[in-house]
Formats: sequence, structure tokens, C-alpha cells
Amino acid sequence: MYYSLLAGGKRIRPVACLLSYDMFKTKQDRKQEEDSLEERYKAVMPTAVSLEMIHTMSLIHDDLPSMDDDDLRRGKPTCHVVYGEDVAILAGDSLLSSAFEYAIKYTPIPSISGENKAERLLDVVGRLGASVGNIGLAGGQVMDLECEGKPSEEVTIEDLRWIHLHKTAALLKVACASGAILGGASESDVAKVETFAEKIGLAFQVADDILDCTASSEELGKTAGKDEMVDKATYVRLLGLEGAKAEAQRLTDEAKECLSEWGEEADGLRAIADFIISRSN
Amino acid sequence: MYYSLLAGGKRIRPVACLLSYDMFKTKQDRKQEEDSLEERYKAVMPTAVSLEMIHTMSLIHDDLPSMDDDDLRRGKPTCHVVYGEDVAILAGDSLLSSAFEYAIKYTPIPSISGENKAERLLDVVGRLGASVGNIGLAGGQVMDLECEGKPSEEVTIEDLRWIHLHKTAALLKVACASGAILGGASESDVAKVETFAEKIGLAFQVADDILDCTASSEELGKTAGKDEMVDKATYVRLLGLEGAKAEAQRLTDEAKECLSEWGEEADGLRAIADFIISRSN
Repeated sequence: MYYSLLAGGKRIRPVACLLSYDMFKTKQDRKQEEDSLEERYKAVMPTAVSLEMIHTMSLIHDDLPSMDDDDLRRGKPTCHVVYGEDVAILAGDSLLSSAFEYAIKYTPIPSISGENKAERLLDVVGRLGASVGNIGLAGGQVMDLECEGKPSEEVTIEDLRWIHLHKTAALLKVACASGAILGGASESDVAKVETFAEKIGLAFQVADDILDCTASSEELGKTAGKDEMVDKATYVRLLGLEGAKAEAQRLTDEAKECLSEWGEEADGLRAIADFIISRSN
Repeated sequence: MYYSLLAGGKRIRPVACLLSYDMFKTKQDRKQEEDSLEERYKAVMPTAVSLEMIHTMSLIHDDLPSMDDDDLRRGKPTCHVVYGEDVAILAGDSLLSSAFEYAIKYTPIPSISGENKAERLLDVVGRLGASVGNIGLAGGQVMDLECEGKPSEEVTIEDLRWIHLHKTAALLKVACASGAILGGASESDVAKVETFAEKIGLAFQVADDILDCTASSEELGKTAGKDEMVDKATYVRLLGLEGAKAEAQRLTDEAKECLSEWGEEADGLRAIADFIISRSN
């Protein structure tokens, strides 16, 4: 569990969660809390950590021999290479279930903003659960495996979109929604950051497909060029390299549009959107 | 997910949860709700279902080729035999995460008994998370796999106890605790039903070891005689068949002692304790 969780990574999901919280729990609200980051994010940090635990679980299981069979992740040998398949499966199961425990155990309910504080935390944990299930990560991965079994020309851009909305965007969506909910956001504002997250989730995956064919394994910390090797349907294959780049830019612009009502308090999330398509790994 | 969840089974964990609820949410409390079972158990049924989802996940993953490599479960071919290893792993992941979503989504908070209703549901979900983690199911399974790697004479009764307290008793413990919490129990009463559950959890495993060498695969719905075949350390091996039977009886008696303060409202849980050692599968 520690080996994979602490192997590094970009921490985009937890960061998106904290920045989404910042949009609603504004400077004015927090006056007295400014002394430390720990104090500033105490209502949301446990959920941010849970998101990374869940994401790490999905990487450990996706890398297994019966799934994507990868031996390099975050620049290190994958969990099952080091500890064996059995322990890797159990480490993932334990990270997943502990994520729910962690968010509940370490979130001080009075520090949550808005009305119905305990209900807000229940909402967050329920959404975390949904994001991994059959209409979340796991469903996206099943569809991904099914499409890999087909000739790549039979896979449409709609199939890819469905896969990535569930496999990648679902967890980013709950990351942004959770931060907003714990920061005291209204339902309609939560919906706006969710749409933002869906767009950057799709952009993230388009950027991943671009990086897979333009960056080295060393830069990526995982096996590069793998998509072409296994004849996988990707945005690059369907749209061409330039077409994919334009698609990523379009999604990022649309994402930022969702935040047009907010001023500088949303600059953090806007920066995440830019980072996602300009990153080199 | 449906294939394994609806394959039958004894449903001991959800039943224990409902019966524990009955101990606290007494007849008097429910007067007006007596018209249907659905109404009677509406505060606790979603959690009972979650418990079975989590238990089913643990069976699917334990049966995988890299773990216990079993091809028969609940009288049917195991999940990975029917759907492949990749889908079986994802079905387990999805059942696990959906369990948390399910308990939160379908529990009507006002129907929970006692003070701080939303906090009670958070407590239940947090305990569910802990029961699967590194000091729960997953930890118990890792230790089990480690002990299987050793000559059986090096495994002590304390090792076995630790494995079963985590692998088997942890989920029964949260089953009984959850029912009590949602029924409005005090902390000290929750602790009493937890001790009850630990004892019957251990008795359950002793009975399992006995059945493995006395019943047929047909009766069990899973491969019989497997423990001896793989030279596994069991209570029967360590204590002999008669010694194991005496141990199961002792644990059951101690379990019932934990409920001595209660009258007929605890008869349901007492019946579970008796069932656990008298069952034939």
C-alpha cells in the first residue's frame, strides 16, 4: 500500500480537490485559519488523500498481468512485480476500502462549511463510492478491455469518450465536487465544477494519448509507445496528432468556460486545466 | 457483480446485522411500522446489503488463480472461470466501492434511531471501510497466504486466531455493530455485540475447518477436503476433530454470555450463534 501510494505521481486529483475547495471557502471565510496549510485545508485534506488512495488502487489493479500487464509505473517497478499478484490485488482492495474509512475518520465535521455538515460528508463519501463502480472507474476499464479485444478501426470516438468519461473523468469529477461540497457550495455550483472536471478529464486522456506517442518511458515513468504496440484505439489514431492536440485545447477552453462566473478564487482550477495539456509526463 | 452476488449463500452477515438491529429497535419502538418487513428494516437493510456486497467481493478475489485458485463457489463456477480474471477483479472492485455508495444512498437518515443520525451512518460506513483494510479482511488474507507458504507445523494456534479474527470475524463484527448503531445502541452496548461477533466469527471458522474435512463438495457448494490437500494449518489439524468441535462449542457459549443482559430481543443473535456451529454447509 505504501510502496505504490508513496511512489510519487502528479497528485492531480487531490490538488484539484483542494483547489475546488478554495473556490468556495474563500480567503474571507478563513481569516483566522491562515496560520498553516494544515489548518486551512483540515476539512478537505482527508478526502484529498482518499482520492489518491483510490487512484493508486486503480493503477495497481490496471497494471496486473490479467489487465494491462505493465511492469513500470511512476518510474518504479509495478506493485505486483515487487510483491506478487496476490499481495498487489489485496493492497488495492485495502487502499480502496481504507480510503472510505480515512475520509470519515479524519474529517472534523465542524470544520466543514455550510449547513448539514455531516450530510455533506456522507454525500462526498457516497460519490467516492459511485466513482469507482460500474458506472465509474471499473465500468470504464471493462469497456476499455472490451475495445482492446476489437480491431482498432471498429472503435469509435464515442466509445473512447465513454471509456474516458468513466475511467478517467469520474474520479476528477468527484475530486472537484468533493472540494466544492466541503467548502459549502450550493448544488448548482457543484454541478458547474463537475462539468469543468469532465472536460479536463477528457482533455487529460487526450493528452495521455499524445504523450504516449511523443514522450519517452523515462519522461513518463511508465512504458511509452504502448498504445501503438498493442494496436489500441486512441485519440491520436482517430484524429491524428494535430487533431488530438486541437481537441485537447478545445476541451480545456470549454472547461474554463464553466468557471466564467468566478474571479481569481478559481485561478487554481484554471491552472490545473492548463497544466493538464502542457505537462510532459 | 450480479452473477456472484445472487449466487446464493447463507447471508449470515446481513442477517446478523438485521438481528442486531432488532435487539435495540425493539417491538415497542416500531409499533406503527409493523406492516411490512421493508418498513421494519428500512434504516438497516441498505447496510445489510452492503455487507453482502463486500463479502461477495472478498470471495471473488480470494478465489482468483493468484490467491486460492478455486473454481467452485456457492455451488457454481467461480466468477473468473465464467468471466475471466480481469472482469472478476473489476467486479470485485466495483462491488466493494458500490457497497459504500449503496449504504449511503439508500439509508433514509430520519429512519435511523437515536441522536446524531447522520453521524451514526458515517460511523457505520467508516467501520465498513476499516473491516476490509489492512487490519481487516485484506490483512487477514495476506497473513493467510504467508502461512500457507510455511510448513503447517510452524503455524501456531495464535497465527490462526489472528488470521480468522481479521479475515472472518472483522466483517461479522461490523455487521453486528452496524445493526446496533442504526438501532440506536449506546457505545458500550455496541462493544458488547462486537465481542459477541468476534466469538461467533472464530467459531464460524472452526466450523468451516471441521466441515472441510467432514462434508462433501456437493453439500458445501465449494471444493471440500482442500485444506488437507494443500497441507493447510487448520483448527482440526492443530486440535484434532474432537478438540475443534469442543473449541467451537466453547466459543459459541462465550458469545452467548456477551448477550446475558438481554432477554428475548437477543434470541435472533443467539440463534445465529447456534446455527454457525450446527450448519451443514
